[in-house]
Amino acid sequence: MAKSLTSRKEDYSKWYNELVVKAGLAENSAVRGSMVIKPYGFAIWEKMQAQLDKMFKETGHQNAYFPLFVPKSLFEAEEKNAEGFAKEVAVVTHYRLKTDPEDKSKLIVDPEAKLEEELVVRPTSEAIIWNTYKGWIQSYRDLPILVNQWANVVRWEMRTRLFLRTAEFLWQEGHTAHATKEEALAEAHQMNRIYAQFAREFMAMPVVEGSKTESERFAGAEETLCIEALMQDGKALQAGTSHFLGQNFAKAFDVKFATQDGGLEYVWATSWGVSTRLMGALIMTHSDDKGLVLPPKLAPIQVVIVPIYKGQEQLAQISEVANKLAAELRQKGLSVKYDDRDTQKPGWKFAQYELQGVPVRIAIGPKDLEKGTVELARRDTLTKEFVQQDEVVEKANALMEEIQDNLFKRSQQFREEHTTEVNSFEEFKEVLEEKGGFLSAHWDGTAETEAKIQEETKATIRCIPFDRKEEEGVCVYSGKKSTGRVLFAKAY
Amino acid sequence: MAKSLTSRKEDYSKWYNELVVKAGLAENSAVRGSMVIKPYGFAIWEKMQAQLDKMFKETGHQNAYFPLFVPKSLFEAEEKNAEGFAKEVAVVTHYRLKTDPEDKSKLIVDPEAKLEEELVVRPTSEAIIWNTYKGWIQSYRDLPILVNQWANVVRWEMRTRLFLRTAEFLWQEGHTAHATKEEALAEAHQMNRIYAQFAREFMAMPVVEGSKTESERFAGAEETLCIEALMQDGKALQAGTSHFLGQNFAKAFDVKFATQDGGLEYVWATSWGVSTRLMGALIMTHSDDKGLVLPPKLAPIQVVIVPIYKGQEQLAQISEVANKLAAELRQKGLSVKYDDRDTQKPGWKFAQYELQGVPVRIAIGPKDLEKGTVELARRDTLTKEFVQQDEVVEKANALMEEIQDNLFKRSQQFREEHTTEVNSFEEFKEVLEEKGGFLSAHWDGTAETEAKIQEETKATIRCIPFDRKEEEGVCVYSGKKSTGRVLFAKAY
Repeated sequence: MAKSLTSRKEDYSKWYNELVVKAGLAENSAVRGSMVIKPYGFAIWEKMQAQLDKMFKETGHQNAYFPLFVPKSLFEAEEKNAEGFAKEVAVVTHYRLKTDPEDKSKLIVDPEAKLEEELVVRPTSEAIIWNTYKGWIQSYRDLPILVNQWANVVRWEMRTRLFLRTAEFLWQEGHTAHATKEEALAEAHQMNRIYAQFAREFMAMPVVEGSKTESERFAGAEETLCIEALMQDGKALQAGTSHFLGQNFAKAFDVKFATQDGGLEYVWATSWGVSTRLMGALIMTHSDDKGLVLPPKLAPIQVVIVPIYKGQEQLAQISEVANKLAAELRQKGLSVKYDDRDTQKPGWKFAQYELQGVPVRIAIGPKDLEKGTVELARRDTLTKEFVQQDEVVEKANALMEEIQDNLFKRSQQFREEHTTEVNSFEEFKEVLEEKGGFLSAHWDGTAETEAKIQEETKATIRCIPFDRKEEEGVCVYSGKKSTGRVLFAKAY
Repeated sequence: MAKSLTSRKEDYSKWYNELVVKAGLAENSAVRGSMVIKPYGFAIWEKMQAQLDKMFKETGHQNAYFPLFVPKSLFEAEEKNAEGFAKEVAVVTHYRLKTDPEDKSKLIVDPEAKLEEELVVRPTSEAIIWNTYKGWIQSYRDLPILVNQWANVVRWEMRTRLFLRTAEFLWQEGHTAHATKEEALAEAHQMNRIYAQFAREFMAMPVVEGSKTESERFAGAEETLCIEALMQDGKALQAGTSHFLGQNFAKAFDVKFATQDGGLEYVWATSWGVSTRLMGALIMTHSDDKGLVLPPKLAPIQVVIVPIYKGQEQLAQISEVANKLAAELRQKGLSVKYDDRDTQKPGWKFAQYELQGVPVRIAIGPKDLEKGTVELARRDTLTKEFVQQDEVVEKANALMEEIQDNLFKRSQQFREEHTTEVNSFEEFKEVLEEKGGFLSAHWDGTAETEAKIQEETKATIRCIPFDRKEEEGVCVYSGKKSTGRVLFAKAY
């Protein structure tokens, strides 16, 4: 179980895959590109879900559920969206299996159970939802509609990686309908801000908020806002997107509303989503060569207590102290595990909880009983200290905030150190190869230049940051005029 | 919106369908047999989920997530299970669409993107999960595995009804693995008891706990336990099932474990589930001709406050009282809505909240301001009374428990009145036709008799109740010996 990982330096990608599996987060399944999310990984995702769901509800959103399948004729209605996803959709064509006449132990697709119209497994739900909204919206009184759905979606990816890119993944997708363009835009911005706030305050992950270039937009969107994070290996990761969809879907599905002054207009739309990909972002923001490092706010176990003992009598004495501490810590609202299994040794347990990223570890041995102390270890800094038993509850509780803060500061510092202003294409390529990270560079605003830079360097424009300075400059590639810097990076 | 419903007496089935749609619970979608669960309906389901999830976790279960798709070769591995579901599975055969060369605005399935092996959309997850457990289980130390998953599943039903029978539905499915038969059996019984407890304490719905006859068992199970409820029209509804799977799946997927004394044995299994079908059960247990009646513990809005006013000044005065009351009620942990919309009249709002089953309504008019009173109305009894403003918080809070209890007692009484001991086949048919409900009758224990009774009457054996008296008798159909009564009914 607790065997050591490949180091990040040696092979970052291998380290990541090993960590995900060994820490019990997820594993590949028998279905190409689909993963199994294991209980420990799912417990982290549940914490993310609970917090995001709270933030959505606090801003007036309600959950609902729409069908998994999208009839092909609806799927193709919004042309750009259909075009964007057609190449990666799983298609249901039949609704029955039957016994193979040549081998009674096998089943074959029953050719007589062919669907008249094929069903697409949703890669995203705009089509089925806007077809539904058509029935919900007649007048301005029916607006806004602020709905979110937690669901599974399928995109047939050729190269998959646990959490980062899987054929099936879990996500939430918000789909809102508004009477005005301004209101829809404000909604899209609000949700992008909520994602940024969640990333910072709960994942301890700094993100850049910005908008995508036209070529990087969601298929069918007029504008795509995003949060972009930087991973430890210098690659960027798109962590969430929020789309202003204009009236594209309202037009495709003919959704109009009677305005207050008696007119008839198409409805304005947004959609926004984050997925189990956030798990990958969380892992690659904080973890180290010993395993996962979790921010306390998302850790399923925040404090683990490990007894170090010989014989049942000593265990009983230690357990008395441990159970008292555990009860007091739980009283403070902390999630505590007391691991008194006798099937594993303390050293094995230490390594295991380091691998699983438990923020604080308390060890209690016979000497601690004499001295009234415990050993308190932090996962983020890997430091240890002896603490008086009557101080440990306060101390461990305070560490939750301290570790949460430290992780954020550490990753923010990393990002700052790995965001480089570059002013020529030579410099661009050099920094990209040798240092990685975000390159802040002038760009002439054309899709052509963007494509050429990607072709030559594999770097893409991650976003046009909202907080960029407006400054005149010249495009690093074309030498043409630019009005501000954008962020380039290689990305997941 | 608030138009009156077809009465239950007139057409129960029509009443149900209208209620589900008009109360904003769910509606049919563009996908054959799949429903859209609307925000208000989903909010009730979320309350059910939260409570069940808590009960599962309190009994040591963890959540995880397994793939939506099951490769055909895995699906067919457990023969009985495969046979049981083969006729109703949606099958993915292709992973790409392409532009129709004959009409560029259309998409067609790309014949070059045919899967080598078809993927079944899970109708239940035993196959994919036991194939995964094979990798998780080596030794007795790895047992038990107590895992649950919240997921969508698809069963291609020919005749569908909102919540009761839909092609896609939401559910939870627990899948556990054990070292001994006794432990697995105890788990299956524990989970059936938890379902019964949830039904009684939260849904205010009495259920009979029992086991299914062999012909009614889950495909692949050695024993199926269940909870059976009785709807207002005298038909039974299977509300939850818990299966003891023996070693069937362990054998099909070759899952063995090293025992403590050095042997090698197949693992024992259970699975158990409840679904969005519970929504249908909830509706048909309590609701009336005015609409939904919700037990307070599952009501998204527990108290609604409606102002009755003329002009803005009066509204302001009433709002002051209403907002104060709302705050105090929320302080008590109640979910409160103050509906001061000026787009709808009070009468419309009253009808709407009756339709949506809000347990308690408080109305405040100008006379109440003078007298220091409010009008307090109960949804379950449709009674109203005037209450002093300084007593209304206590009163409304107490009503939550009172209404919850009353609903349970009422439905329990209904069930008792509609459970009839019958001692001949004539009596059986007569009671079934004229009164409906559960028929408690002696049965000879053979599948043949069971099938014949079903053929002649459409009644099935709902369960062999755990609490039945062991008494000798003669089968109502065959006249052969019987050792106890079983419950027959027509069922959803």
